[in-house]
This record gives sequence, structure tokens and C-alpha cells, in this order.
Amino acid sequence: MAKPWATLGIDLHLEPAGTGLRRGLTDALRDAVRTGRLAPGTRLPSSRSLAADLGIARNTVAEAYADLVAEGWLTARQGSATRVADRTVTPPPDATAGPRTSAPGRAHARMPAPSRRERPRPVHDLVPGTPDLSAFPRAEWLKAARRAFLGAPHQALGYGDPRGRPELRTALAGYLARARGVRADPEHIVVCAGFVHGLQLLGRVLRARGAATIAVESYGLPRHWKQLTAAGLTTAPLPFDELGTDPAALTDEGAVLLTPAHQFPMGVPLHRDRRATVVDWARRTGGLVLEDDYDGEFRYDRQPVGALQGLEPDHVVYLGTASKSLAPGLRLAWMVLPPTLVEEVTAAKGGTDTCGALDQLTLAEFLASGAYDRHVRAARLRYRRRRDALVRALAAQAPHLEVTGIAAGLHVLLRLPPGTEQSVVQAATWQGLALHGLTFFRHEAATTPPADALVVGYGTPPDHAWAGALEALCRVLP
Amino acid sequence: MAKPWATLGIDLHLEPAGTGLRRGLTDALRDAVRTGRLAPGTRLPSSRSLAADLGIARNTVAEAYADLVAEGWLTARQGSATRVADRTVTPPPDATAGPRTSAPGRAHARMPAPSRRERPRPVHDLVPGTPDLSAFPRAEWLKAARRAFLGAPHQALGYGDPRGRPELRTALAGYLARARGVRADPEHIVVCAGFVHGLQLLGRVLRARGAATIAVESYGLPRHWKQLTAAGLTTAPLPFDELGTDPAALTDEGAVLLTPAHQFPMGVPLHRDRRATVVDWARRTGGLVLEDDYDGEFRYDRQPVGALQGLEPDHVVYLGTASKSLAPGLRLAWMVLPPTLVEEVTAAKGGTDTCGALDQLTLAEFLASGAYDRHVRAARLRYRRRRDALVRALAAQAPHLEVTGIAAGLHVLLRLPPGTEQSVVQAATWQGLALHGLTFFRHEAATTPPADALVVGYGTPPDHAWAGALEALCRVLP
Repeated sequence: MAKPWATLGIDLHLEPAGTGLRRGLTDALRDAVRTGRLAPGTRLPSSRSLAADLGIARNTVAEAYADLVAEGWLTARQGSATRVADRTVTPPPDATAGPRTSAPGRAHARMPAPSRRERPRPVHDLVPGTPDLSAFPRAEWLKAARRAFLGAPHQALGYGDPRGRPELRTALAGYLARARGVRADPEHIVVCAGFVHGLQLLGRVLRARGAATIAVESYGLPRHWKQLTAAGLTTAPLPFDELGTDPAALTDEGAVLLTPAHQFPMGVPLHRDRRATVVDWARRTGGLVLEDDYDGEFRYDRQPVGALQGLEPDHVVYLGTASKSLAPGLRLAWMVLPPTLVEEVTAAKGGTDTCGALDQLTLAEFLASGAYDRHVRAARLRYRRRRDALVRALAAQAPHLEVTGIAAGLHVLLRLPPGTEQSVVQAATWQGLALHGLTFFRHEAATTPPADALVVGYGTPPDHAWAGALEALCRVLP
Repeated sequence: MAKPWATLGIDLHLEPAGTGLRRGLTDALRDAVRTGRLAPGTRLPSSRSLAADLGIARNTVAEAYADLVAEGWLTARQGSATRVADRTVTPPPDATAGPRTSAPGRAHARMPAPSRRERPRPVHDLVPGTPDLSAFPRAEWLKAARRAFLGAPHQALGYGDPRGRPELRTALAGYLARARGVRADPEHIVVCAGFVHGLQLLGRVLRARGAATIAVESYGLPRHWKQLTAAGLTTAPLPFDELGTDPAALTDEGAVLLTPAHQFPMGVPLHRDRRATVVDWARRTGGLVLEDDYDGEFRYDRQPVGALQGLEPDHVVYLGTASKSLAPGLRLAWMVLPPTLVEEVTAAKGGTDTCGALDQLTLAEFLASGAYDRHVRAARLRYRRRRDALVRALAAQAPHLEVTGIAAGLHVLLRLPPGTEQSVVQAATWQGLALHGLTFFRHEAATTPPADALVVGYGTPPDHAWAGALEALCRVLP
């Protein structure tokens, strides 16, 4: 429902009801502040009167206000009205969703090193891309491995279906339909050894089909673009603005690589109009959309954005991974392919399975037994607490810096005063804090005006190191 | 233990004890029905008497019977004995995967219908390439996995060194030096997801270096040549004669792919003069030798032929695999590279590790603890017995046919009278015996005169099915 509320004087778009209501209200208010519809200093109606106006419980409004105060969008002082926070920096060109990093080997993302590959690890690691490895459910995984392995037919240890184990593809089809709105048939799922492997395969297939160019986003992971370049494709960045990546410029590219649920690293979801634009383009031109859904499991403040693939399974390749939800070391990711692509992709794989049967069987067992869901729920809670602590700490110690992309994922975007990014990253390095500036993630051909910011990954440090990492971050901020 | 049970009149191979007993019994009985050792209509002993005979609980037998009745292999009517079910279709379409529904958990219960690629398996399988999967040391592997995993640092679950886990590379370096005479430095080992994956990577690197042609052997695996072609290389077969592959014709090819220790499928080692010729060529021209050491572990009658790589580590890539010694489903192989190739190969990998950390750690533990050596020794003994039984049976039943390539590996070459190969392979197919003629392995550009022969793989059938497979083979021989 969307209607003007007398007490607020603006439109709010709310999810219908239920537990999503508080989240919906929080998002709607945050958007209103972010976009300037609610100007800094604006006095908000009391929770009682807004609740009456919206026809919802007063508590819901009070909680939404509290969330936004915690996030720094609103201010509340004892005995005074709740107001829109003042911001020294102009509203970010990006919205509020979240984060990711697919995987750079942080090893690679990071600086060049003394010994070729043995880079000294920094004391604190806030480079996005790797989840908290200390939280990997080792004992549960081993138990599932045992069950899965002892129950598997001998044939599971042979040369397998190049698409991957059927048990895993079946379990994934169910999970992806339920959790991400993916229209998945196990027959059209291909398991691969991580997102990069999937991207390599797709790049080669696209090139073999005659594609010369693939559109990408202005911000993303250079190592992904590099895989596409290695496959013989030119990567052409789409513009990026306050609604996210703008696909209107798509013409005759063979494909487009997007992070629709949660732009990496800017943290916004692809605007719904633009989702429609992309799908229209794909239908019209026969182009392929590669949907990188790297962290669809981690969304904190509102309903997850459903997968684009659900709108147009014949033109969208959905790519998911266990690298964020479990661990990169499993080297397990999956593609849900348009049926016409399956043969070409499995041929590019070499006509064999490429992932160990035992890990595949174990993940299937993990998904089917509910252990995966339990793990993700627990991880989501833990990461959300970190996110909250991060937002609170930044609001307290660097209230002049805007934090965006907080609604999901394992990283946030921290805007910096113009011209300061490089020196902040340098200062961090000196202090043993691994950190990436936004520049690292900007496509060299991007036309979007550059901006100074940090991409702060909060997923990596183990729990005991998190507070120290946060302090180290606050110390280097301008 | 495997012994004939008076009450049943057949051999059963049972796991020693514990919860696996019921499953083991169920499997053994199912296999006996499937392979025809227990004919349709056969009346089974009462659960009481079979239990007494086997020295296990009556309940275990009753449950195994119940499972097999549920699966349709046995029938039981009130007040009547349990019998082997009549089958309208003979033989049952699927040997191992389908009916084994007793064990797996939920994941398996949701298995989809057999897909396009899961072709009905023949009753007997004498196609070379897959070891006896029923002999995979599952319990030991799980134990090693547990030790390795619980002892590994968290970092092992992250984005790893693109060369593979250091634990595994170190263990491999020691093992390969000891067992195969490879000069291996862990820094120059790259773990890959099976031999085909390694070949793909090397093909791409060679192509990127400007190579246009790679020499191959007149006989080999078409799917390997296909990978090289897919990388943009032309495969040019070298002549083959009684001394094996003849490398004298090598000129300016960028590389040559060889099976020096045990030519596949002809079964001869590369003659020592020719080993020298190859190494000379490589030194002289800077060409690269790809040494496919697929079954170096299985040599029965003499000292293993050392790896060619030991002669010239700067120009030979040694490729080994766990697919024959353990199981293809692990998807673990390794390359020992000339130092100058490491960067290019890991870049072709996408700059990331491609194999699951857990399997790598487990194999490292397997190698380091001696479990790998023990397993290989036991497997060598078992395969040698099979080899001996095969040679004896052929000598008795087809003394006019020559058997060669028997000193090593998991297959032999059985020469046929001219013009008979095709009809023998066809007859085998009709009888549910999967078998390849030599023609299957001949390069289409080979100039070596064609010869009629069968390539008989004796590694694949599980122990209980081996005698039946051998009989089936003898039946189709001219």
C-alpha cells in the first residue's frame, strides 16, 4: 500500500503486514530520509500519532524509530522529539541495501607481497568477501558428511554427471525456490567450484556463441571482470546512479553481469523499474543476464529481494554460492541455467563433474536436513549484531560520515570526505588493518563520477577479534 | 569377511559389524539378486536360519529382507517364504544407484527420476578407467577427514592458494619423490580437479603462449584430445610401433602428451631410448612434455618405471591423479610444474583454488599417515588377483587370442582376429556387457595400421561381480 500520511506528509511504501511491517516501515522511513523527502532536522510525528495514522501498533513505529536512531538516520534526545539527523555530507547516491564481496581471494585483493603468495596477514581484516571462518559448523558438517557418505551408492564415487551430484541439485532446487524465488529444475542446475569457476564457464560459452562484449556494473570485483576478459570478452560498465545500476543503456551486448539483490559493493538492490528494463532487454535481444546472488542469505531489515531469475528463467543465469553462507574453502557454487545453455556449460566444464562428490553429498544432506537453514539463521543473527555495532560505533565516533548499504550482506559503504580515501586506506595499512577503498572496486571504464568511500567488510574477523577491528577502523577515520 | 553360507549357497561380502551390518547385508543380497546369483523365484532361508548362519541378530536379517521387499527385489506373502522377485525386465536397468534407497537420508528420498545423462548401466562393466568403487576405504577416509578437519586452521576454509592446500602439496611432494621418482617441490605443485581439469589448464596456457599444435599418441582417450582441441590446439598423433610411441617425429610442436609409464591403452612403457629422445627434443626446442601418470601405483610384475619428469623437471609436467588409486569422485589430481609455468597455470585456474579444502586436507592426512600406501598396497593385491584370473581364464577359454599390457594398470589388451572387433563389441552390448574395442581409442589422424582388439578394464566391477563379468567376457569372444 502506498498513500500519503497526514502526519508525515509523504508517501510510504509498506509491505502489507506481519513481521515485515516494522522492517517495511523502517526501510520506507530510511528511504525518505536518504532521498531527502524528509529533510535534515525535520521533526517526526510521535510514534502514537503515526501509528494511528498508519493503522498499526504504536510499538512497531517506536521500534522503527529506534532502529533508525541506531543507524544514525534519526536523532532522539530525552524529552525532545525525534528528528531527521543532520548530515554533513550530502545524501549518498546509493540507497540502503547492502554488501558483498564475492570472493576475491582476499589474498589477491590485497597488496603485492614479499613471497609470491604468502602474504603476511594483517592484524585486522575488514576486506569484504570472506565470512567468519571460525563460525563454520565443523562438527555438524562432519556429521552430515558421515551420514551422506555412508548412505551414498558406490557409484557416487565414480565419474559423475558433469552437472554435479543429483542429490545436491535436487536439494538446491528446493532451497532456491523457497528462499530466493528461483525457478529451479535440478536438470538445469550445474554445480561449479565457486562463482569464479561458473563465470569462467559462462564467459567461454558466451565467447563461443559469438559474443564480444558483456555489460558489467560500474562497481564490482576486478577479478570477475578479469575472468571475462580472459575468456575473450570486453567488459563494458553500465552507469550507476542513486537508483543503482542503470541498464537503460544496454543494446547488443551478449550478456550483462549484475548483482540485482544487493549491488556489490554499493549495497543497493536493483530498482524494480530497472529489473523490468533488464528483463525486457534480455527478451528483446536474446541477451543473457548473469545474476550474481552472492549473499542472498544475509538480509536483515526487510524481505529479501527475490531473484531476478524468477521473472525470466529463460534469459537469466542465477549464480549462488556456499562461499558466504558457509565457507569459500568448500569451493561449491551453483548455476541455474536456461535449459538451452546446459549442454554448452557442461561441455565447457570438460564433460566431467569438477567438484568432490563427498562435499556435494554433504551439502545436499545439510540442505535437506535443515542444518543449512539453522546455520544461516544463526549466522544472520551474528552478522546483524556486528552490523549494528558497526553502525553504532560509526554514528558515535564519526557522525559526520555516512554509512550506507547496511540492510544486507557482510559489508557497508562508508562515505569519506572528498580526497581522503587514499590516505585513509594507507593509514589503515600502516596500522595492520586490511581495508579497501571504493576505488578498488570501480571499473576503469566507468563514467560514474568517482567518490571517496571505504567498503567495510564486517564478516571476516572471528568474534573475539571483531571489537578490536572496529576500534582500529575508528582510529583511522578522518 | 566373505564366505559361502550354507543356507544361502552364495558368497556375501559383509562389513564387519555395527550399524552398517543391516545395510551391508541388504546391499549384498541386492547385488546377488541383481547379478543373478540368486535367481528369480529362489526361496530365501528363514531370517532365523540365515541369522544363525551369519552369526548376526535375526532382526538384522528380517529388516534387510523387509527393505528388499519394499524395494521390489524380494517378495513376501503372509504364511509363505520370502523369495527373489520375478522380473519382467531382465536385467534390472540400474546396477548400483537406483535401488539403494535403504540408506540415504532425505536428500536421496527426493531424488528425481533418472536424467538424460544417467544412462541405464550395463550388468557388467569392463570399460577401463574407473577403479572398484566398492573398495573405496570409506570408514578410513571419514576418520582421516575428521582428524584433518578438526586439526586445520580456520584459514584453511577461506579462499585458498590457487595451487591448492599447502598440506597436500607437501605430502604429495614427499610421496611422488618416493613412489614415482618425481622431483617435486611443493611450491611447484598445483592441485586440480581431476586430470581433465589439469589438461584444460595446460591447453589454455600453451595456446596463450602461442602453441598451435600438440603431439599426442596414436592411441589414447578421445575426451582428452577434445579438451586440447577446445583450447584451440591441433592434436597431431605420433606413430606407434612395437616399442611404443615413437617421438622421433617431434619437431616444432609446442608440447607432447604422453603416458610414458604405461601407454594407455596399449599397456607398454615408453622405451628407454625413446624417453631420451623425448627429453632431448624438449631441451632442444623448449617444448613441453605432459606426462600422464594415470596409474603409476599399479605395477605388478617388476619395478615401477620412474617418472620421466625425474629426468628433466624443467621441461616435463608430471600429472598424477587420485581417480585410479582412490576414486574419481574425489576430483583430485595434481601437476608438478616447471617453475616457469606456475604463474600461468594458477592464473588459468582463475586465481583461486578449485578443489574443496576438506578433501585436500583429508588426502594430505591419508598420505602422511600411511593410509594411502596401505590402501594402494591392498588394492594392488586385489587387482593383481583379478589380472591373474583374467589371464588364466583367457588362456583357458580363448588360447588363440593374445593378451598384452598385463604388467601394470587396470586393463589389458586382448588381440582379436582381423575384422572381428566390431561384432564382438556389439555382441557384448547385447549381453549387457560394457566393453570398448581398440578402435574407440585410436586417433582419427593416426597413421599406425588399425588392429582389432579389446581393451578390457578389470578394475571397475566390485569383487562379487567380477567373476560374472569375466564369464560374460568369455562368452562373447570369437
